[in-house]
Amino acid sequence: MTKTAAIIGGGVIGGGWAARFLLQGWNVRVFDPDPQAQRKIGEVIANARRSLPGLSDVGLPDEGSLTYHETVSEAVEGALWIQESVPERLDLKHRVFSQIQQSCGGDAIIGSSTSGFKPSELQENAARPEQIVVTHPFNPVYLLPLIELVPSEKNQPALIERAKGILTEVGCYPLHIKKEIDAHIADRFLEAVWREALWLINDGIATTEEIDNAIRYGFGLRWAQMGLFETYRIAGGEAGMRHFIEQFGPCLSWPWTKLMDVPDLTEDLIDAIAGQSDAQSGAHSIRELERIRDNNLVTILRGLKAQNWGAGKLLRAQDKRTERLALTLDDVADLSRPITTVDRAVPLDWADYNGHMNEARYLQAFGDATDRLMLLVGCDADYIATGGSFFTAETHIRHIDEAHMGDRIRIETQLVLGEGKKMHLFHRMLRGDTLIATGEHMMIHVSLTTRKASVPEPVVADKLARLAAAHAALPLPDGAGAAVGVRK
Amino acid sequence: MTKTAAIIGGGVIGGGWAARFLLQGWNVRVFDPDPQAQRKIGEVIANARRSLPGLSDVGLPDEGSLTYHETVSEAVEGALWIQESVPERLDLKHRVFSQIQQSCGGDAIIGSSTSGFKPSELQENAARPEQIVVTHPFNPVYLLPLIELVPSEKNQPALIERAKGILTEVGCYPLHIKKEIDAHIADRFLEAVWREALWLINDGIATTEEIDNAIRYGFGLRWAQMGLFETYRIAGGEAGMRHFIEQFGPCLSWPWTKLMDVPDLTEDLIDAIAGQSDAQSGAHSIRELERIRDNNLVTILRGLKAQNWGAGKLLRAQDKRTERLALTLDDVADLSRPITTVDRAVPLDWADYNGHMNEARYLQAFGDATDRLMLLVGCDADYIATGGSFFTAETHIRHIDEAHMGDRIRIETQLVLGEGKKMHLFHRMLRGDTLIATGEHMMIHVSLTTRKASVPEPVVADKLARLAAAHAALPLPDGAGAAVGVRK
Repeated sequence: MTKTAAIIGGGVIGGGWAARFLLQGWNVRVFDPDPQAQRKIGEVIANARRSLPGLSDVGLPDEGSLTYHETVSEAVEGALWIQESVPERLDLKHRVFSQIQQSCGGDAIIGSSTSGFKPSELQENAARPEQIVVTHPFNPVYLLPLIELVPSEKNQPALIERAKGILTEVGCYPLHIKKEIDAHIADRFLEAVWREALWLINDGIATTEEIDNAIRYGFGLRWAQMGLFETYRIAGGEAGMRHFIEQFGPCLSWPWTKLMDVPDLTEDLIDAIAGQSDAQSGAHSIRELERIRDNNLVTILRGLKAQNWGAGKLLRAQDKRTERLALTLDDVADLSRPITTVDRAVPLDWADYNGHMNEARYLQAFGDATDRLMLLVGCDADYIATGGSFFTAETHIRHIDEAHMGDRIRIETQLVLGEGKKMHLFHRMLRGDTLIATGEHMMIHVSLTTRKASVPEPVVADKLARLAAAHAALPLPDGAGAAVGVRK
Repeated sequence: MTKTAAIIGGGVIGGGWAARFLLQGWNVRVFDPDPQAQRKIGEVIANARRSLPGLSDVGLPDEGSLTYHETVSEAVEGALWIQESVPERLDLKHRVFSQIQQSCGGDAIIGSSTSGFKPSELQENAARPEQIVVTHPFNPVYLLPLIELVPSEKNQPALIERAKGILTEVGCYPLHIKKEIDAHIADRFLEAVWREALWLINDGIATTEEIDNAIRYGFGLRWAQMGLFETYRIAGGEAGMRHFIEQFGPCLSWPWTKLMDVPDLTEDLIDAIAGQSDAQSGAHSIRELERIRDNNLVTILRGLKAQNWGAGKLLRAQDKRTERLALTLDDVADLSRPITTVDRAVPLDWADYNGHMNEARYLQAFGDATDRLMLLVGCDADYIATGGSFFTAETHIRHIDEAHMGDRIRIETQLVLGEGKKMHLFHRMLRGDTLIATGEHMMIHVSLTTRKASVPEPVVADKLARLAAAHAALPLPDGAGAAVGVRK
């Protein structure tokens, strides 16, 4: 039977919870007195539908039903999970819990999205305090897995386990916090950084943009994958976490932040940190951790580069500055020869479980080579913006040898045919003089409006004809025109 | 002429600087009295060679020369850039600057990697204080672009501009900090978080691993791409940054961190933040920023998933839990029909500038379908660990229709031939009943030791034969055996 979640309080957080449950196949019942609630929640769910399904490499279940209700009592009826995301006022939360508990089942879990209140505070005066627990999410709730699960002593272990199970089922990571504290864990860091940042702006040291850049071009990239301690474990090197703490211990007394009330670095505290770090990361040597970190960083940086954002935007600018391949046909030294359209190293995130460059990356490199040839014949971003482009109709790849991480590869491109709507390309991928693979592609010029084949504008057609004439004397490449499993 | 950089003080930081310059074609001259210096720097450079070249989509220049020197004076000779990365003791740094300035050129730039000292402190008693500036990097220096460039009043604008130019040339992002302060900007945040974290461990609230998870499954993913203020700008919604500050202002007086000395939220401070945030992010609406953020998050999360690390490891576990496709031939409902080998949504990072799924992603999906078929015939991770696998020899893709972001796609796979070393597959990619593309692949079984073709072990050969027999009666698929530009 389809399970039901009740969302009490919409907005960005409640809407994110609604999306999590809905897209994992739960029915979702919403109560929110805001007359704009349906629109606001709808917008969050639209964002989630756009981004969440593709995070999964398997198909998600069919969406559950989404309904809006006039009363808390109606919304919580039959709900297994009830998520409270009303404003951060304790009296209001108490009132809402009272309404919820008047109508909800005794075995429903009532999670609170509170950023700051402790579960024992939320449970004060409740009819069944043992049913209420903190489940603090992070925006965007539909993408970030972290949920801080904070129980009080009143919550039974069985309820905590059930809560973990349900949160895991909807794709979250329940971080079980064993001892309640104001603002839980993550928001203590967010708040410390926020307060420090306010000082920097207040004192005219930095602007909001400079602060964001100081984070996203540096330690933000480290934290996305390893957090604080594992990063510092690597910084400590072979000498380990204890060495790192001892080395940076003195800084604690220096005015490196406005946070000057600092715990004493006792032997017990150092032992605790070093021991916990061993338990956390000790399965990997520092060398292994360095490589894991670098793999992650390269992957994140290349991902941001594909999005042309943040540190990835910097990398694009760097490529542009150091670009040495031809940008126009006039730049090509010898137009009668195949043209170098790619010259690069194989990134470490292009390798696969077989220890060599993954097949999809061959086509990525050939696709880059095709893009470069399109650029040379005038089909650049400006031309594409006018509504014309080349689409690939057909591709034939032959693997002759293997490429590995770090190999410097080069692609030489021959125009086999370039007339009318057709552009027939043959790419040869080389490492030095060794042929690694060939890619043969039939490109068709299309109108981006009709999505149908169309003749290119003269600005492209003329250059294409010029290159076709220059390549006309080249012999048909070895391997061209072949079919899979059939040699020509 | 090849430019020269001098690295004074090796270790992880100096080694990272050496790698940056070396891999961008500079000659690098190192002074470090540590007898282990060459080994330590060599290890950092090896890591850099492994990760940095592939970050670039264009070929890097040829590496410069790397030499080690017995004296500071010899190392700095002819250097345009001199980077000091000795231990954080002011007296030691003063002594090193004095040695450097006795031998270096008057127009060389002397950058200090100091985490905490202000440039005016470094410059005390220097022969030419105007030559010394803070250029504070972040580990790993060869991958993270951020350099905090902090001058004092003694540094001339021309030197600062030259420093920016050189740092940019070697792929860094110089963040020019206009007013010196202890620990610059980024380390103030790092230190505040570190101090807060020590309290959490000291008070038994959380372990190092729980703290790292609280960062890398939540806000760390936000900070890697947008930092603090742009993230909160989105959280403020259409009402903007001012609304966000006013909403969360009261928390500043709550014990949400140990940092209790907080600036007053005056109208001036709120105006400054709101105005700076408008200048930084105002070109995008909140809706646009949400989508940019989600694109980045999906890209980072999918990247980490490929690395099977951090939040990406959680996603893999979630896929495994919700997996519904067959895992063995016995799971397949009707073995006489093509088998469903992929069923998924098109992720938003698979789209390209033509607004549809990029061609390389078709091969990625077909590759996943091939992997699934390999799994079904027993060629799983355990089998591959014994030294056998299938490599793709040849691929033919035909594009029939377009797939777009969010489309639910399905791949049906027919085994055309499965005998001896050969596995000939034909994949049909569908959206509902609409055929989008076909992928025809010749796979060859290889020994992972010899990298040569070999006959699969019986554990695979038997299942392959069983499937081949079951598919023998299926007609040759439409489009199989065709060559590019030639219809059969």
